[in-house]
Amino acid sequence: MPDLSSMLASVLVAPQTVRLERRDVPRPGAGQVLVRVTAVGCCGSDTHFFETGNVGDIVVEGPIVLGHETAGRIAAVGDGVDAARVGERVAIDPQRPCRRCSYCKHGQSHLCPHMQMYGAYPTDGSFAEYVVIDDDFAYPIPDTMSDEEGALVEPLSVAVHACRRAGIKAGSRVLITGAGPIGVMCAEAARAFGATEIVVSDPVRVRREVVARHGATRALDPAADDLRMFDRYFDVYLDASGNARAVQQAFGTIRPGGAAVLVGMGDLDLEVPIAMIQQREITLTGTFRYVNTWPTAIQLISSGRVQVGDLVTGRYGLDAVDEALMRTKTDPTAVKTMVIPDLTGATL
Amino acid sequence: MPDLSSMLASVLVAPQTVRLERRDVPRPGAGQVLVRVTAVGCCGSDTHFFETGNVGDIVVEGPIVLGHETAGRIAAVGDGVDAARVGERVAIDPQRPCRRCSYCKHGQSHLCPHMQMYGAYPTDGSFAEYVVIDDDFAYPIPDTMSDEEGALVEPLSVAVHACRRAGIKAGSRVLITGAGPIGVMCAEAARAFGATEIVVSDPVRVRREVVARHGATRALDPAADDLRMFDRYFDVYLDASGNARAVQQAFGTIRPGGAAVLVGMGDLDLEVPIAMIQQREITLTGTFRYVNTWPTAIQLISSGRVQVGDLVTGRYGLDAVDEALMRTKTDPTAVKTMVIPDLTGATL
Amino acid sequence: MPDLSSMLASVLVAPQTVRLERRDVPRPGAGQVLVRVTAVGCCGSDTHFFETGNVGDIVVEGPIVLGHETAGRIAAVGDGVDAARVGERVAIDPQRPCRRCSYCKHGQSHLCPHMQMYGAYPTDGSFAEYVVIDDDFAYPIPDTMSDEEGALVEPLSVAVHACRRAGIKAGSRVLITGAGPIGVMCAEAARAFGATEIVVSDPVRVRREVVARHGATRALDPAADDLRMFDRYFDVYLDASGNARAVQQAFGTIRPGGAAVLVGMGDLDLEVPIAMIQQREITLTGTFRYVNTWPTAIQLISSGRVQVGDLVTGRYGLDAVDEALMRTKTDPTAVKTMVIPDLTGATL
Amino acid sequence: MPDLSSMLASVLVAPQTVRLERRDVPRPGAGQVLVRVTAVGCCGSDTHFFETGNVGDIVVEGPIVLGHETAGRIAAVGDGVDAARVGERVAIDPQRPCRRCSYCKHGQSHLCPHMQMYGAYPTDGSFAEYVVIDDDFAYPIPDTMSDEEGALVEPLSVAVHACRRAGIKAGSRVLITGAGPIGVMCAEAARAFGATEIVVSDPVRVRREVVARHGATRALDPAADDLRMFDRYFDVYLDASGNARAVQQAFGTIRPGGAAVLVGMGDLDLEVPIAMIQQREITLTGTFRYVNTWPTAIQLISSGRVQVGDLVTGRYGLDAVDEALMRTKTDPTAVKTMVIPDLTGATL
Repeated sequence: MPDLSSMLASVLVAPQTVRLERRDVPRPGAGQVLVRVTAVGCCGSDTHFFETGNVGDIVVEGPIVLGHETAGRIAAVGDGVDAARVGERVAIDPQRPCRRCSYCKHGQSHLCPHMQMYGAYPTDGSFAEYVVIDDDFAYPIPDTMSDEEGALVEPLSVAVHACRRAGIKAGSRVLITGAGPIGVMCAEAARAFGATEIVVSDPVRVRREVVARHGATRALDPAADDLRMFDRYFDVYLDASGNARAVQQAFGTIRPGGAAVLVGMGDLDLEVPIAMIQQREITLTGTFRYVNTWPTAIQLISSGRVQVGDLVTGRYGLDAVDEALMRTKTDPTAVKTMVIPDLTGATL
Repeated sequence: MPDLSSMLASVLVAPQTVRLERRDVPRPGAGQVLVRVTAVGCCGSDTHFFETGNVGDIVVEGPIVLGHETAGRIAAVGDGVDAARVGERVAIDPQRPCRRCSYCKHGQSHLCPHMQMYGAYPTDGSFAEYVVIDDDFAYPIPDTMSDEEGALVEPLSVAVHACRRAGIKAGSRVLITGAGPIGVMCAEAARAFGATEIVVSDPVRVRREVVARHGATRALDPAADDLRMFDRYFDVYLDASGNARAVQQAFGTIRPGGAAVLVGMGDLDLEVPIAMIQQREITLTGTFRYVNTWPTAIQLISSGRVQVGDLVTGRYGLDAVDEALMRTKTDPTAVKTMVIPDLTGATL
Repeated sequence: MPDLSSMLASVLVAPQTVRLERRDVPRPGAGQVLVRVTAVGCCGSDTHFFETGNVGDIVVEGPIVLGHETAGRIAAVGDGVDAARVGERVAIDPQRPCRRCSYCKHGQSHLCPHMQMYGAYPTDGSFAEYVVIDDDFAYPIPDTMSDEEGALVEPLSVAVHACRRAGIKAGSRVLITGAGPIGVMCAEAARAFGATEIVVSDPVRVRREVVARHGATRALDPAADDLRMFDRYFDVYLDASGNARAVQQAFGTIRPGGAAVLVGMGDLDLEVPIAMIQQREITLTGTFRYVNTWPTAIQLISSGRVQVGDLVTGRYGLDAVDEALMRTKTDPTAVKTMVIPDLTGATL
Repeated sequence: MPDLSSMLASVLVAPQTVRLERRDVPRPGAGQVLVRVTAVGCCGSDTHFFETGNVGDIVVEGPIVLGHETAGRIAAVGDGVDAARVGERVAIDPQRPCRRCSYCKHGQSHLCPHMQMYGAYPTDGSFAEYVVIDDDFAYPIPDTMSDEEGALVEPLSVAVHACRRAGIKAGSRVLITGAGPIGVMCAEAARAFGATEIVVSDPVRVRREVVARHGATRALDPAADDLRMFDRYFDVYLDASGNARAVQQAFGTIRPGGAAVLVGMGDLDLEVPIAMIQQREITLTGTFRYVNTWPTAIQLISSGRVQVGDLVTGRYGLDAVDEALMRTKTDPTAVKTMVIPDLTGATL
């Protein structure tokens, strides 16, 4: 039985300032579990919060623990949860929807207006030794999956949700703009959904090399390869770049009746080519997080259908969350950085 | 047996100039029927072609017979068509797809790249005494339907296709901007699809009055009623105004997970609110004509589920097509103008 | 403020024996509401439980209050529920799913393996003065709806769920076998979903007369009208008869690619025509209760799109639940019998 | 330019009797192509026709050339077909739908009531040196695909169609009964659709070994492994055995809301467990051939996502079609037998 009296947490106290604090270990309420964190991925939104204090409309208004790509091991359970789960290795869906609104009851809890989300003020995230989550949002992972793969279920979920909304299926032709972590996850997921052509465009060579090993059937340099060669060719277009110019250039490559999905919460100032949407009946939509993706994403990783473990390019302790968050900014070869609470034995 | 040696046709010879001409009656090829035209509706696109010589990218490059909202009676049949069809009253789907491309084989023939369409240069339309169409695009109508209702199947088809793409169903809440002929058809169709709230916005009082009798549960004046009272309220938003400002104001009324459909081929210069598409997972698409709508639209009219017959507010002979086309421009109370070849006994 | 110390309840103590008992008023837990019952419909399954003590695999193992078609008025609220709801008129979805299993999270809570359901032992139902339900399963109804219409939302929900699963839409051709209460509800719902041909078959004349006023476009007597005239005609077939012979005769009327839905929990011993399922690609499924139907059904009634109020053909007090339950058995003209707790001032 | 004056064809002249005949080479009509056959797979239905003269309701009423799993090379083109296609290697969808009925226009041409199908009397099939097919049903295959793989597109199409109708997707759990050629194709296709658990049951050891190399994640012996261990486990169940007992045992393994698909035209005398269909809302359907599967199946093979080339276990010339057809009957290790017209230089 671990000491559950206090824990370390990395707290964002001001833009660009995190502080390692000793805090009470949270207690799992009824229907909840306490999870000892083993690996937390750094997301672009964490970095954005760290740098600027906001992401889009969401503003950090006080001290907050960031981090929401989480794997761990159940350390204790609240009332009503099977005690046999203690010790179970889990990947955490970091959302706490209300379960009662129309969205929750229709299987679209990600759109729940009462959502609490790890690392979205005032709900603390997982750059800490322990976190609490509703029992059914802590999904068991098999021993064939590493802790880091458990943490990678979250970014893979972003991609799984995008592929679902895009309707990718066996034989689909897919274009992805952007080969950052989300673009790579999208390429892997698209492949797992059965897409047979997965063209990925990114101006950075090292990213093209990564995605060529992770799902892409072809990696293009937009500076050298003119997308116009793919006139009305793709069934599905996913943007993972957040770059308005990339989206506009890509639009003409979508076949009539095809779909364009803007993945994630960019703050795009985009002039959509309305005439194509009308005359080609293209469907444009976006994604907001994910819903009911954990079981699928865990299956895809544990069955070997997607391979993401080698995307981890850096590991930091809880005392170096700021470095971890800036790593992908400072190192162009970095793909996914992990915070490993047990890594360095950080103490206060 | 009618005299099939020659016929009258109203030919667009230059922008704003139509000429009544005597032409050979077209001969139905194999699998085609010859139809004696009894009623042709005037579409906004006909008026646009008449005034300017183009609609979007489609340019009139020579003399053309406009008109594509057509009812008639089968006068003769080509090889391979059951001769018993002669005399049958029909509503005409004015499209001739290739039947062989991937779109045609997937039930999306409206996206066929080889489409020939009535009144789209160089394919003549139906402001004439006779037209030819593929046998299976001449749909029988029952005697309980008038010729004019037969012609109205076409604009109702635009609305049926839009309601399908929007996923309108029993209990849907729908907002429509624009109460011109297409907006009214959309309100009627939305009602027939089961929508229980159908709010229609139009700045013109007489149009609001018409739509209030034709499907709308509420008709709003955008100058007086602020759409913001409907924040995130509607499941579906249909634009039938082609007005960029209307679309932008309406977007915030769509609930998360809802759909926006731009009906018809506007030439909108529209700045889409991308953040809503992303954070609310709104789906935006357009409609390009229609596909497989005739049987449904005929059923809806003949069963009395939609009532469109009284939308006809003017009738002209073949010698007055120019007047007919300009009528909705000059008369704000006009909704749908019909050309009736037999009306005036026009001769040359 | 009503006296909430005790209440009357009609308790099934043995097959064919109900007893009026005085019981404690249940207390609403956190997130629940206490509802003063104003009208409860009698369902065929209530009658079956009353007569035999079971429905299919579900066996009554002790005293139980039946009744699950419920309208009422909120009398008190539990923790976390807005006190302003007291006094609100509501229609009750009688299901208490777990909200945490995979089915609940995918919007299919009716398939939840942990479901508690009114009147399904050991969960008491609503043949009582008060009932408790989760806050979000008590749906507000407008003043334009009567209490009895509020109670009829439940059987209409059975039909709405069936129409959804069948994919009924604008212009659908539908066959329904059985014009009992559920068959009539299905005809009304099919009409509201846009079906334009709704043929209903029932051997009982008075039922055919009722359904002819409630959605059916044609009512057939299977003894006189041979269904074979509709060879491969219908898009959708709904069985509301639970009669194996009816189902078998009806199967040949489904068009290739069409759907057959067995509505409700019959105990059919049915030899399905497998060759038709294979060679015509017919889809066969059943319905188990309903999910997320209350808002739609309330909209359909309150908007006047379905008319069900006049289906009530008998009203009984809490002291006459046994008579109420047997009424549809003894009176062939009975359609829907209501228990009205306040009707007779029953006391003990 | 090959000699197109005459050709060899293997003609079924009576049950169990094929005769090699010299016939005129068919001429491609307008919109058709003439294909020099390079490989034809033997289907179970061919064998059934050969042995008994019928398959279900379809009866051979005169001499007929069987064979419909066809690859070849375009030898000549009819009017309206691009002459540049001569020499192109193709896989043939052996269906000639009418293109004009409601099914054809809705993308369901396989349900066309006017269908002509290779080897379905009186339409000759492809156990011959040349065949004619509509231009758009001869799909180009890349040079990375062998002729035999081209012929295997047809049985893979059966599986692709089944997976589509079953709604198999990323992360699906799938049970397949029967590991004959169609069962193996289903396992490969299910994998390509993203299924992560693919359990296949077959009593024959060698078949289990084959399927374990072709998509299955687990191969079971129904005599040794009790399917009841998978109670309500699978999202999708595909029957490729045509064995009523297998289907009945498998039904209980389908989860509530899941799907059962009977693949192909069995003549099952099956008592479906109706209570499960109702209480678990299981959807049961069948498949009748395939539609719009060639492009997908070709993509899956040419991209290496499915591997079927090594399933060919025997090759025969046109003079040995009878042996070829009986091979899978006489040799339990045979999976797919090919007829190769050029194999033996058969002459008359």
